[in-house]
Amino acid sequence: MTEAAAEPARAGRRGRGGGGAARRAERTAVSVETAKYIQRKIPNFEILDEAALDIIQANAEQILEEIGVAFVDNPAALERWKAAGADVNGERVRIPKGLARKLCETAPSTFTQHARNPERNVEIGGKNLVLAPVYGPPFVRDAAGGRRYATIADFQKFVKLGYMSKWLHHSGGTVCEPTDVPVNKRHLDMLLAHMTLSDKPFMGSVTEPERAQDSIEMCEILFGKEFVADNTVMVNLININSPMTFDATMMGALEVYAAHNQACIISPFIVGGAMAPVSVAGTLTQVFAEVLAGVAYSQLIRAGAPVIMGAFVTSIDMNSGAPTFGTPEAAHITYGAGQLARRMGLPYRSAGSFCGSKLPDAQAAYETANSLNMGLLAGVNFMLHSCGWLEGGLVASFEKFVMDADQLGTLHHLAKGVEMDENAQALDAIREVGPGGHYLGCAHTQANFKTAFWRSDLFDYKPFETWDEEGARDTQALASIRVQKMVDTYVQPPLDPEIHAALTAYVEAKKASMPDSFM
Amino acid sequence: MTEAAAEPARAGRRGRGGGGAARRAERTAVSVETAKYIQRKIPNFEILDEAALDIIQANAEQILEEIGVAFVDNPAALERWKAAGADVNGERVRIPKGLARKLCETAPSTFTQHARNPERNVEIGGKNLVLAPVYGPPFVRDAAGGRRYATIADFQKFVKLGYMSKWLHHSGGTVCEPTDVPVNKRHLDMLLAHMTLSDKPFMGSVTEPERAQDSIEMCEILFGKEFVADNTVMVNLININSPMTFDATMMGALEVYAAHNQACIISPFIVGGAMAPVSVAGTLTQVFAEVLAGVAYSQLIRAGAPVIMGAFVTSIDMNSGAPTFGTPEAAHITYGAGQLARRMGLPYRSAGSFCGSKLPDAQAAYETANSLNMGLLAGVNFMLHSCGWLEGGLVASFEKFVMDADQLGTLHHLAKGVEMDENAQALDAIREVGPGGHYLGCAHTQANFKTAFWRSDLFDYKPFETWDEEGARDTQALASIRVQKMVDTYVQPPLDPEIHAALTAYVEAKKASMPDSFM
Repeated sequence: MTEAAAEPARAGRRGRGGGGAARRAERTAVSVETAKYIQRKIPNFEILDEAALDIIQANAEQILEEIGVAFVDNPAALERWKAAGADVNGERVRIPKGLARKLCETAPSTFTQHARNPERNVEIGGKNLVLAPVYGPPFVRDAAGGRRYATIADFQKFVKLGYMSKWLHHSGGTVCEPTDVPVNKRHLDMLLAHMTLSDKPFMGSVTEPERAQDSIEMCEILFGKEFVADNTVMVNLININSPMTFDATMMGALEVYAAHNQACIISPFIVGGAMAPVSVAGTLTQVFAEVLAGVAYSQLIRAGAPVIMGAFVTSIDMNSGAPTFGTPEAAHITYGAGQLARRMGLPYRSAGSFCGSKLPDAQAAYETANSLNMGLLAGVNFMLHSCGWLEGGLVASFEKFVMDADQLGTLHHLAKGVEMDENAQALDAIREVGPGGHYLGCAHTQANFKTAFWRSDLFDYKPFETWDEEGARDTQALASIRVQKMVDTYVQPPLDPEIHAALTAYVEAKKASMPDSFM
Repeated sequence: MTEAAAEPARAGRRGRGGGGAARRAERTAVSVETAKYIQRKIPNFEILDEAALDIIQANAEQILEEIGVAFVDNPAALERWKAAGADVNGERVRIPKGLARKLCETAPSTFTQHARNPERNVEIGGKNLVLAPVYGPPFVRDAAGGRRYATIADFQKFVKLGYMSKWLHHSGGTVCEPTDVPVNKRHLDMLLAHMTLSDKPFMGSVTEPERAQDSIEMCEILFGKEFVADNTVMVNLININSPMTFDATMMGALEVYAAHNQACIISPFIVGGAMAPVSVAGTLTQVFAEVLAGVAYSQLIRAGAPVIMGAFVTSIDMNSGAPTFGTPEAAHITYGAGQLARRMGLPYRSAGSFCGSKLPDAQAAYETANSLNMGLLAGVNFMLHSCGWLEGGLVASFEKFVMDADQLGTLHHLAKGVEMDENAQALDAIREVGPGGHYLGCAHTQANFKTAFWRSDLFDYKPFETWDEEGARDTQALASIRVQKMVDTYVQPPLDPEIHAALTAYVEAKKASMPDSFM
């Protein structure tokens, strides 16, 4: 690796050397605007009082000491816990009160995730909110093709849409499962797509420790080895197998990433009433116990490794057993978990474009809007699944991706808070117009209207007659058009051709080194 | 009027005397469950700090003193203002700093609106939230019939749906404009529908002072003259003609209602950038000035008359001039106006199922959910338009009415806050299940699952295959079915036949007393 390649700021510039196509690409790519990650100027919504937080924290520590957590098939983890002062019995790790919290103290409260385009770097923690797309669906859906298994072509299309989405700060990870690629090689194609089709930050593979290692090696090609050694270039989703079980695969990936100072979201995955108690307070208690244990373990691997406290929690329909989304109980938990994260000084991941609906219809939008609004006010710092989620996460929807991505603009504007300077007070405008007048033409309106109000780039704001003449289209139909338009105008962001070639060679060599596996 | 009729608690019981049909009706009607109005156990979201509130209040009082407000075609109002100490010049009323606030002090911070069924009484103010349906659309829409002018039959159907909607506490007012009835007689048919087809509280007519008087007279028949003299039985929507103009029609209605101790919502109706400055702080300032003047005037009519501070504020799409809904700027204003209302100790009306969409689709639902969630957290006490609003308020949608009414359940559950008793802490459940287990069968889940999670009565929670086999219906299709089912199972709540006959006779006599007018 040359020094230049180790400095990602120059990766784009060096792309200019790639000839006419690269130059044209760079010129056009400038028009793809990405908003800066959200920096909240509004308060968080605090649903719990200090007494309630104290009870939850005390109960969580009681659970860790009395019941403990299981680290399965992971003798090295048990040794680490023993050395740290935990009571280890078989695979059960009982953590004395105070120990987990103490270990968590070395985790940073905020950290930078670098993108290959440094303008896309994100600061995770504090009052910030970084938005990333849906993660994990095995199916995709669009109006034209219906519901079908996802392919790598679908994956690449989502990465392009994400790159072109103004309010999306992050390219995400498994935006859909490319089921046409062998399971043991998918991560290579997915990372290659994030690295070459977008210049936003992205996520690494967590499905095997070896794939985490591959992710780091590909980042070393993209960013330079020295840069990766010194900086966080990936955020990785480590799910806890709730209740209170840490499996060897996920912990293996965490061990690789934490050792390399790469960030992990340590996240219980809970359907309330199944993987946690049916009550909000009980679920918060278990979530907090699990996160304390998981974050503490990350710090045993490497003190100071960046981590995010995660809480994926949804309710259940006790009639059918189906998980339900955008519900009040999920909101309570999301608000409460945010307060617990702030108490620990940890960045917080939760909420998303959650819905149970099979279609990008009104149900999907009510449920999604409930969750997005709650996520903003809950103080979430990293919102995975912020667009594209459909059918309980089984489906990534192209139309819903652009609908949600458009709505993310409302979160940016909400977070700005209320300006109170003299221009905003507008006393002169009120004087100018007076009783019975109107403001459309007044000087204050002329000076401010362009930035005054958020405006959807997708929704219908036309007069009824125009809308009717144009086919009386619903939101899904408008979104289908927008998806196609974005795909048609997509231009790949510039990348040093040498780096691109090295990434491709790495992927090809890795793929050739092992037989296909679909398990 | 007999004494019994003056006591609304007995109106239902007396209905038993009406024979077999009335008895059957009463039996069946019991199954129509209505939730109690929301009593929040969660904090309000406070977007402005005290310094910002001080600035807005000072500026609002500055406006009232320096610019003043216009009371048009209303010499009596000008006399009242003069007597109260205002500076009156032509129709312009300049109110010295402090005077309006002082006059507002006699307005109650909370009051009871009585329903003919006392179980449906609502307490407006404090931490409460009362939900009422859409108000004012000249059109209706459903999937079968499309968009068309509303009729009295549509109106009656909406009143029935509202009566049967569990999460709706209020029957509302002009749920749609019955355009097939002469303008000067509509209010009679509308009130008759609210009084006889529902037993929830309702709103009076404000389109002429005489119609306000008719509304009171009809209430005197329904509740008894003495009861109406002593109690508030109507809430009435008095819009301010922003900026800062109080027209004679609306003020005439207010004068009638306030004199009779009936409640008025005193509400600026603002499309930001047109009727108020294009900035949030400027709009809040004007809204506050207008409400201060309007509420003060209500107290000049009758000190102690119940009033609600209203704020109907939406943003504008500066490209098309269309009002836009569920936007971040509308949220800022709604949050801020709530803080101003609390500062004044006044009940607060704002938010609703607002959307600009032509269809009950994803756009409609995103925009609506944004507004409903904001309304709950903004501390709204009376939410008009909480269900059924479509196309910027031009259309009342049958499907959207039941969709929104279902979503209002989420507000009820959100408002409950988080229980922290021992059962909710669920430590025994966590002990019982332990790492790697599941909670579906545990004792705590069995004891609590029925009430643990809110559940939609409308949305699709079925497995994909079942949903697909049943026709892959979207939310609108499910809502159409629900509308029909509700209409088919509707049973009129019991009402003393004498009262019913007296109301009908009053309406017939009034109608016969004047020629039809469609102006």
